[in-house]
Amino acid sequence: MSAHAPIEYRDAGTAVRAVFDDIKRTREVDDVNNFWKYLAHDPVSLKRTWESVKEIMAPGALDALTKEMIYLAVSVTNGCGYCIASHGAAARKAGMTDEMFGEVMAVVGMANETNRLANGYRVPIDVAFER
Amino acid sequence: MSAHAPIEYRDAGTAVRAVFDDIKRTREVDDVNNFWKYLAHDPVSLKRTWESVKEIMAPGALDALTKEMIYLAVSVTNGCGYCIASHGAAARKAGMTDEMFGEVMAVVGMANETNRLANGYRVPIDVAFER
Amino acid sequence: MSAHAPIEYRDAGTAVRAVFDDIKRTREVDDVNNFWKYLAHDPVSLKRTWESVKEIMAPGALDALTKEMIYLAVSVTNGCGYCIASHGAAARKAGMTDEMFGEVMAVVGMANETNRLANGYRVPIDVAFER
Amino acid sequence: MSAHAPIEYRDAGTAVRAVFDDIKRTREVDDVNNFWKYLAHDPVSLKRTWESVKEIMAPGALDALTKEMIYLAVSVTNGCGYCIASHGAAARKAGMTDEMFGEVMAVVGMANETNRLANGYRVPIDVAFER
Amino acid sequence: MSAHAPIEYRDAGTAVRAVFDDIKRTREVDDVNNFWKYLAHDPVSLKRTWESVKEIMAPGALDALTKEMIYLAVSVTNGCGYCIASHGAAARKAGMTDEMFGEVMAVVGMANETNRLANGYRVPIDVAFER
Amino acid sequence: MSAHAPIEYRDAGTAVRAVFDDIKRTREVDDVNNFWKYLAHDPVSLKRTWESVKEIMAPGALDALTKEMIYLAVSVTNGCGYCIASHGAAARKAGMTDEMFGEVMAVVGMANETNRLANGYRVPIDVAFER
Repeated sequence: MSAHAPIEYRDAGTAVRAVFDDIKRTREVDDVNNFWKYLAHDPVSLKRTWESVKEIMAPGALDALTKEMIYLAVSVTNGCGYCIASHGAAARKAGMTDEMFGEVMAVVGMANETNRLANGYRVPIDVAFER
Repeated sequence: MSAHAPIEYRDAGTAVRAVFDDIKRTREVDDVNNFWKYLAHDPVSLKRTWESVKEIMAPGALDALTKEMIYLAVSVTNGCGYCIASHGAAARKAGMTDEMFGEVMAVVGMANETNRLANGYRVPIDVAFER
Repeated sequence: MSAHAPIEYRDAGTAVRAVFDDIKRTREVDDVNNFWKYLAHDPVSLKRTWESVKEIMAPGALDALTKEMIYLAVSVTNGCGYCIASHGAAARKAGMTDEMFGEVMAVVGMANETNRLANGYRVPIDVAFER
Repeated sequence: MSAHAPIEYRDAGTAVRAVFDDIKRTREVDDVNNFWKYLAHDPVSLKRTWESVKEIMAPGALDALTKEMIYLAVSVTNGCGYCIASHGAAARKAGMTDEMFGEVMAVVGMANETNRLANGYRVPIDVAFER
Repeated sequence: MSAHAPIEYRDAGTAVRAVFDDIKRTREVDDVNNFWKYLAHDPVSLKRTWESVKEIMAPGALDALTKEMIYLAVSVTNGCGYCIASHGAAARKAGMTDEMFGEVMAVVGMANETNRLANGYRVPIDVAFER
Repeated sequence: MSAHAPIEYRDAGTAVRAVFDDIKRTREVDDVNNFWKYLAHDPVSLKRTWESVKEIMAPGALDALTKEMIYLAVSVTNGCGYCIASHGAAARKAGMTDEMFGEVMAVVGMANETNRLANGYRVPIDVAFER
């Protein structure tokens, strides 16, 4: 089987189905995203990745929306087209408005700019930040 | 003057002093960070960058803490040592607890991981994300 | 001629044809990939790049498969769509199985994650690693 | 407790100690690296990250040395100073010779170069790579 | 209104139209690029970004062509498909020949390669560079 | 011999000395930079990398200063500390003034910002850029 085709639920083995079922239950969705259908080529990676994502993205000290916006900010910085689309959708589902989206993008853009200014000017870390 | 030495307030010209004064007033601090002292070698860039940062980082649809955590997430992704130190400090000042920091790092780590899994498995964007 | 069209063998000058011939002979293929057909707009870069790739990718202390998997790992980290497709194909041709591919992706994903955790927690290098 | 100080075994709680013990047993070392001592500020992340690393880096279709060299290749591409030092050491411990190291670096360098050439020349993916 | 549709002049509010007018006047073009039509979803970001770009890209100590080639070099390094297309076009409009393009790509490729060799070999900065 | 120590001329073999001599002659310097002294651990890589750098950085359609500023722009974007220091010095030697440096940094910063805005807003490429 090629690694470059999605594995649908009906074609999946027991281990993959168990993960798909847990994703659908946890997220209250009818089907899993393509990401999981492709990762299903490696059932061990699928299980580990899902369990990590589930643990990390559950509300804790930070709420679900904040976590999704951070996920989106990283994906935009890395230029991952799939992740920008999927986590953009996830963030909107969690409550991100158009205005919030605009502010996330503005912060991401400015951080990417000043990261390079700090690199280029070779700015040493302030003693105050070192405690 | 070398580009690789900080410009202190006492040695700065009028244009630079005006920006330094505005930073100190806005942030309620006694001195500006090294970032601004190095960028002061280019007074036009200093003014433009500060005014952009000031506009972008002011509370809006997102509060100051959320913005600082996103800034930190981008800086960690890019590996900018100075920015990790300065925006880590800024986020803590804005209220980031140790627990929140741990969760930001966990999300940043996982996003960087799944960004590459999506790249590597060449996952096509779900029709549902395209609206 | 636009830089954004492939140069086919029949339209190529002597210098480009010589490189194309060497690629076909070395790799035992009937035609060269698009990468070379586009780079052919700059015959000097084409020659230098091919000779470097040929020297570097030849089996040495590392076999061809290991080298192709490392090439793929870098391309996935950088998110280069073309390179992921071409070096994924090259790695499979050199013997990468689906299972190996899954393990390469898992290592690449984890390395990208822990790279950011090390950045974010500002972990100092252990004395033991400095010899 | 500051997030920017290592947590030593003697100061660690039960959950952290359990992970440290497993790292020491699995890797047959007397102490854990700084990476784990810093990550210990977040015991949940520590446990999840270690268990993922342990599962991923165990020999499978790829041997331990190949996995460590891929880890190093990613770390070099991302410019993570800590990770280059720690996984460089790990790769050498797993058998990487000076000659192998030189070849890994050469492949990483060339991949980073051709990734950008493919981007810049906007090379479309060959039909042959799409199957 | 979705964030993922361009805002055309006829549908834009006063603030957006004022920016679009200034872009068209400054660049002597009949219409603005998609970049501005999407950014128009956030009129404040649109205005700030355009004014920054206008200030930065105006000829100064460096001419317009040199600035556009540097913009292209960064975009190629980051793998931003849109930016490679738009700033490639802008650089050609400013006078970049095919030969110049080939040389920009060669420098970008080599810089990306040697950046990683310097990382991987952990080369310390020469005292001579520190002044 | 450890890979993490510079190889000085007096300790180098014939192949390495030949490259060092050519670097010194071409650049009219008394000694080579640390970069070459570390890369000398792999004489084949040393020779290939130097010959590539020499060919690419020689004045052609672009002058030496423009090439060095592009090299610096890439190094700043990637955050390579060594390369920022060495190519910053090389650019200054080739004639980069403080004012030019400020403008290079401003362009690099803005390009890094707008690259992410284009990613985040998922801007499609204008038909006009596709010719």
